[in-house]
Amino acid sequence: MNTRMICRVLGLILLILAALLLLPLFVGLLYGERVGNFLITIAVSGAAGFLLTRVRPETSVLYAREGFVIVGLSWILLSLLGALPFFLSGSIPHYADALFETASGLSTTGATVVTDIEAMPRGDMFWRLFTHWLGGMGVLVFLMAVLPMSGEHSMHIMRAEVPGPTVGKLVPRLRKTARTLYLIYLGLTALETIFLLCGGMSFYEALLHAFSTAGTGGFSTRASSIGGFESAYIEGVVTVFMFLFGVNFNLYFLILIGRWREALKNEELHWYLGIIAASVLLLAAGIRGLYGGIGTALRHAFFNTAAIISTTGFGTVDFTAWPEYCKWILILLMFCGGCAGSTGGGLKLSRLLILGKSMAVSLRQMARPRSVTRVQLDGRRVEDGTVRAAALFFAFYMALLLLFSLLVSLDGFDVATSFTAALSCLSNIGPGMTPLIGPAGSFAVFSVRSKLLLSLAMLLGRLEIYPIFVLLSPRTWKK
Amino acid sequence: MNTRMICRVLGLILLILAALLLLPLFVGLLYGERVGNFLITIAVSGAAGFLLTRVRPETSVLYAREGFVIVGLSWILLSLLGALPFFLSGSIPHYADALFETASGLSTTGATVVTDIEAMPRGDMFWRLFTHWLGGMGVLVFLMAVLPMSGEHSMHIMRAEVPGPTVGKLVPRLRKTARTLYLIYLGLTALETIFLLCGGMSFYEALLHAFSTAGTGGFSTRASSIGGFESAYIEGVVTVFMFLFGVNFNLYFLILIGRWREALKNEELHWYLGIIAASVLLLAAGIRGLYGGIGTALRHAFFNTAAIISTTGFGTVDFTAWPEYCKWILILLMFCGGCAGSTGGGLKLSRLLILGKSMAVSLRQMARPRSVTRVQLDGRRVEDGTVRAAALFFAFYMALLLLFSLLVSLDGFDVATSFTAALSCLSNIGPGMTPLIGPAGSFAVFSVRSKLLLSLAMLLGRLEIYPIFVLLSPRTWKK
Repeated sequence: MNTRMICRVLGLILLILAALLLLPLFVGLLYGERVGNFLITIAVSGAAGFLLTRVRPETSVLYAREGFVIVGLSWILLSLLGALPFFLSGSIPHYADALFETASGLSTTGATVVTDIEAMPRGDMFWRLFTHWLGGMGVLVFLMAVLPMSGEHSMHIMRAEVPGPTVGKLVPRLRKTARTLYLIYLGLTALETIFLLCGGMSFYEALLHAFSTAGTGGFSTRASSIGGFESAYIEGVVTVFMFLFGVNFNLYFLILIGRWREALKNEELHWYLGIIAASVLLLAAGIRGLYGGIGTALRHAFFNTAAIISTTGFGTVDFTAWPEYCKWILILLMFCGGCAGSTGGGLKLSRLLILGKSMAVSLRQMARPRSVTRVQLDGRRVEDGTVRAAALFFAFYMALLLLFSLLVSLDGFDVATSFTAALSCLSNIGPGMTPLIGPAGSFAVFSVRSKLLLSLAMLLGRLEIYPIFVLLSPRTWKK
Repeated sequence: MNTRMICRVLGLILLILAALLLLPLFVGLLYGERVGNFLITIAVSGAAGFLLTRVRPETSVLYAREGFVIVGLSWILLSLLGALPFFLSGSIPHYADALFETASGLSTTGATVVTDIEAMPRGDMFWRLFTHWLGGMGVLVFLMAVLPMSGEHSMHIMRAEVPGPTVGKLVPRLRKTARTLYLIYLGLTALETIFLLCGGMSFYEALLHAFSTAGTGGFSTRASSIGGFESAYIEGVVTVFMFLFGVNFNLYFLILIGRWREALKNEELHWYLGIIAASVLLLAAGIRGLYGGIGTALRHAFFNTAAIISTTGFGTVDFTAWPEYCKWILILLMFCGGCAGSTGGGLKLSRLLILGKSMAVSLRQMARPRSVTRVQLDGRRVEDGTVRAAALFFAFYMALLLLFSLLVSLDGFDVATSFTAALSCLSNIGPGMTPLIGPAGSFAVFSVRSKLLLSLAMLLGRLEIYPIFVLLSPRTWKK
């Protein structure tokens, strides 16, 4: 274990955190708010970062194990330190609550424990929604984009932080990949900000909601989320961008370099579109009666399908009042999640595609044992190892979902609340499927124990389980 | 596809059904009831069986595909014909209800749609509980035990009907295996009948409850199930036998031939015992306050743990009134199920063990990529193919669970009712986890559509998914 190199990278992360905190500090100053909370946090993480970067590693070589440890540790550190501003300013009086909110932000979940959202100082609010943007693409990917790190071995960090079964190898060089991803991310965020400005939002709110959409987070400056703007235009813009941020970013890269034909042929994209179309139609049929017409029903169906499948979790209406089968469609979408290589959470569509195709192949082989059929995705054969990894990830995910449901149920809430709270956090969605924790509810109802457990679930979900497990495994630390 | 041989085997199955129906006919006559319903059903299945057995196959060779088709078709046929007596006697007035009850019986689920159970004629009641006994070990295994079928190829039938990841190869010859399994099954059933007689049960009720326990079914002659006897002794006996029927029957065979040391070393057994012990303690702690003392709490915890993990589903108390975390422990046990090669349903412990160990190995390899660790069970290496099969089965199971939850939710019941109804049927348990469908409720609340869907779910669960899928796949029938 290259402990010295781990310390050094963590130090860099903390320095970046200190630098990033200058943004909410600036926002706070702009609006004439007290900014002591940011100053203290900047001092703490800056000092810790400075000390850690003084550690001189003998070699900069990092293996897979170190990649997992760095990613796991840095996300835990960022959550712990990122919670300080909320706690110090008193906008979230209990540290466990602040930690939950920060983990929810960084993991792009968007579940909130703040009950009076609109009373939060603007600096704190900026930081709250900015964590979505940071967490969406990943802080370590950012680090790699801006710093000249030793090329090949950083791959392990990237692999541990970018969601999906495999990191696309479209862009050959790692730093270039990281930069390209961030540029696309920035571009789309800027585009959404402009579109929202055109809808009459203030720059402050437009930027913050663009952050939240880009990271597929779901925090809002308004208590009633996007519904609070009462604008079909704004809902439309947000719907489209939620959908866009759930697409694999490699496809945008392909389009940028003119290979759009290839991008449009992507199988995962076809399934993404198909699932969205089917869900919208089924939901609209179910809620038609509730909203007095198919037009409004389609609008709400579109918004909520995009909000759930992209794992953003913005709200306009309270879907916990929808017919039961509509709730189940949303629950299925919660499992599903966005495309691999997007900022969305969940199991990821490509993983489900690989699993589904393997299941079909295994059935075919049962019917005709001598037939030779292989699992293929985008015309290429999927290796047995990838199938195995997808199947084991699925098993881990389900096991964690049931475990967290059990642990959260100690608070005494009903089966559906415990289950969908765990599912929503693990898939980084935000709202659950019962009124208590739905779009109109809040996670403030849970005990401190459950809040800490769900914070862990959110980080596990965002980092796709393994970094946290490898970090906590004693075997990792054995000589 | 050897269609002629398939017809012939199905014919034999129907003849056996006609023969078996003589038992409830006899019981009906004994109690002076009308037995026209049984006479008609015997005539129908006898005639159909006779005609089908006239088909002369060119060869008796059966491949895996035919094995799946035979098993899938024969269970569907048995459910359809087995439902006739209830329908014809009027004890279950609607055919869809009678079909649900029969599928529930044969699949050893034990979910019931009969609301006035104690009013059922004794002949019908005998048949109702006898389907559990038949379904527990399997009708085709019975066929193989009594008829001299072509040895090697019948393996495929056996493999398709016996639960668990692999059929134990402890007894070299197939017919001998089938006979041994049935002898152990008969022996244990007889033993339970005797024990229940000692508790003051009538011979009729003792035998019927032994049938129900042996198949890990859960139907009872009493509206309040085992709780209706109000006897701690009877509860104790049933608890022990539920536990025993959830154990791999190969272990009993090992004990019979004196290799009990080997049997006791079985890893799956250790986990079975461990999970039971842990669940009993956790449940007892949770319900202590409800039953005024740790003694009664332990008794109820033991009974219900055995009832759920063995997937029998007998009831004594209404666990839907237990604390939330206790419900979740029972939900987890519902997924779990009994040991492979037992009459229990669910995912089967050995499959979960294989999955859990594979997950541990994959984590170890992430932490130390160069380490070579293999998945082992009972000291032997588990082949990659077995791991893959277990993982894909798990994925199928979860996908079906969510799909059936969605479809059943069209009836408009809450998330927990739809979810645990689907889970309970797919795992062949019986009761769900909400008051509506819990130990004190009934599945009569569901629509005809949901009852048919849940009947399919029960058969899918009992046959471990593939036979039904292979049967319904167009590819199976292509030349």
